[in-house]
Amino acid sequence: MKYAGNDNDLLPSWNDGPAKQAIVSFVARVTTPGGEDFVAEAERVAVFDNDGTLWPEQPLYVQYVFAFDRVAALLPEHPEWEEQEKFRAVLSKDLGRLATLTQRDILDVAAASHGGTTTEEFKQIVGDWLASARHPRFDRPYTECVYQPMLELLAYLRGRGFKTYIVSGGGIEFLRVWAEDIYGVPPEQVVGSSIVTAFEMREGEPLLLRRPEIDFVDDKAGKPVAINKFIGRRPIAAFGNSDGDLQMLQWVTAGEGARLGAIVRHTDGEREFAYDRASPVGRLDKALDEAEERGWTVVDMKRDWRRVFPFETE
Amino acid sequence: MKYAGNDNDLLPSWNDGPAKQAIVSFVARVTTPGGEDFVAEAERVAVFDNDGTLWPEQPLYVQYVFAFDRVAALLPEHPEWEEQEKFRAVLSKDLGRLATLTQRDILDVAAASHGGTTTEEFKQIVGDWLASARHPRFDRPYTECVYQPMLELLAYLRGRGFKTYIVSGGGIEFLRVWAEDIYGVPPEQVVGSSIVTAFEMREGEPLLLRRPEIDFVDDKAGKPVAINKFIGRRPIAAFGNSDGDLQMLQWVTAGEGARLGAIVRHTDGEREFAYDRASPVGRLDKALDEAEERGWTVVDMKRDWRRVFPFETE
Repeated sequence: MKYAGNDNDLLPSWNDGPAKQAIVSFVARVTTPGGEDFVAEAERVAVFDNDGTLWPEQPLYVQYVFAFDRVAALLPEHPEWEEQEKFRAVLSKDLGRLATLTQRDILDVAAASHGGTTTEEFKQIVGDWLASARHPRFDRPYTECVYQPMLELLAYLRGRGFKTYIVSGGGIEFLRVWAEDIYGVPPEQVVGSSIVTAFEMREGEPLLLRRPEIDFVDDKAGKPVAINKFIGRRPIAAFGNSDGDLQMLQWVTAGEGARLGAIVRHTDGEREFAYDRASPVGRLDKALDEAEERGWTVVDMKRDWRRVFPFETE
Repeated sequence: MKYAGNDNDLLPSWNDGPAKQAIVSFVARVTTPGGEDFVAEAERVAVFDNDGTLWPEQPLYVQYVFAFDRVAALLPEHPEWEEQEKFRAVLSKDLGRLATLTQRDILDVAAASHGGTTTEEFKQIVGDWLASARHPRFDRPYTECVYQPMLELLAYLRGRGFKTYIVSGGGIEFLRVWAEDIYGVPPEQVVGSSIVTAFEMREGEPLLLRRPEIDFVDDKAGKPVAINKFIGRRPIAAFGNSDGDLQMLQWVTAGEGARLGAIVRHTDGEREFAYDRASPVGRLDKALDEAEERGWTVVDMKRDWRRVFPFETE
């Protein structure tokens, strides 16, 4: 699918300004045959963080909400959870109490709530949950609460010969259920965190079982490691929004030739959320400092986005 | 790249017989629009083992030879290796002595010989080695000693809308150096074993460092697990040659709809090597029994391949 049109027309939800200009000019540089910065299609790899970059992560990561709902659903089979503060905090859905949990607690809850099924069953569970869950503020399914400008950007890059990948701290098998429908990113282009999965023959039928144990956390220094492992090429463009994307941005933009590093900055409390250095969810601090030093593009949501969500009317 | 020609013409190194017929008829079933077994292009995923399936694994896995050469090259920096039987056996290059090593010994040697560099340096080391190493029997670079019928099969499947993946017990970063040139399989379609890799900032430059520690062994039950993780789709066709491919074949062929499982059987001691149930390298025993039970295609090298290597003259 190649577009012949003017690049600016392909990003209608982006205001004219430095962010849009940086993106369009980068794409022109790497796609102009014979140009100094021309990059062959096979090497046009662009990676996107998901939470806070392609959809909101406030008031809580969407997958945390899924995990908490799973804990509630699984509670009858796990009465012992009622005795543990990490599960009690989760069941309370009290943000203040949740904020007291350690990273280890969160990983324990994630493992417990994401394991114990086959991979096929898990797909079904995620699909069913997405069909009924709604964003607490926008009161719509989460899959409708995605950033319209980023949908346009994904399609625009693919139209210019890029392969678009998601590289998320979220679960790889959680994302794959809906990333193709919503973002046009197929399963083999989704990289994420994982839990231990084991092959087992059960009555002659081969199954993949998800164990309640963390395998890999695709965040911070894990992101460039996972990109190298899954893709085997250094991308030429990376889009993130928090310090969890810092190492990915560093690694991608340190490669030779033209590179684009970009950070979505949450500056629009009216249409979305406004947060940065002090936020426990999606903290943007070091990466914002490095953006200036390293020449990364900062996408200021309030300034640069004409429209935030597909459901907004003009 | 789509072929319009007759399918039989696209596999000139295959003799007419049951194996070629099974492949061509499977491809016709899944690619005929409107047919009962039609499969959309996005789901046409075919996975190939490498050692013994795409190139020889006798008298020793090629990557073992690479590892052993690396041990010799690194010995001056590791005088302590001279005191350890596993390294001494490797340095002796005595097949009988190597056969006494345990799986753990081999993994230790693999980790020690594959770690300690950046990912970029490792690519260079593998490329340099391949440029000078030669197969002991065929006296040619290893990358010329690949199976011509399988090269044709890979290209034929891609021409019919398949995505071809390598799923190898070999090292993912070892394979990626040459798989695209030799097999037409790009880095992002290579799945393999890996060692622990870590991100590090060194004087402001982000690096990926290969640690001398095994991360994942992509063999036996590891293969379906890795396919699920890397590709996120169940392939519809799998090609292997040993018991290391058993679980991959089981999992792929147990899926719904038309499936193709195939085993390359090494029956040609004259042109290649003849071995199966008793071989320490590439043992084919259980998978051969299951081939009959589960209706997998057995490719008999002597019977089914007109030509084995590209360098053979007719």
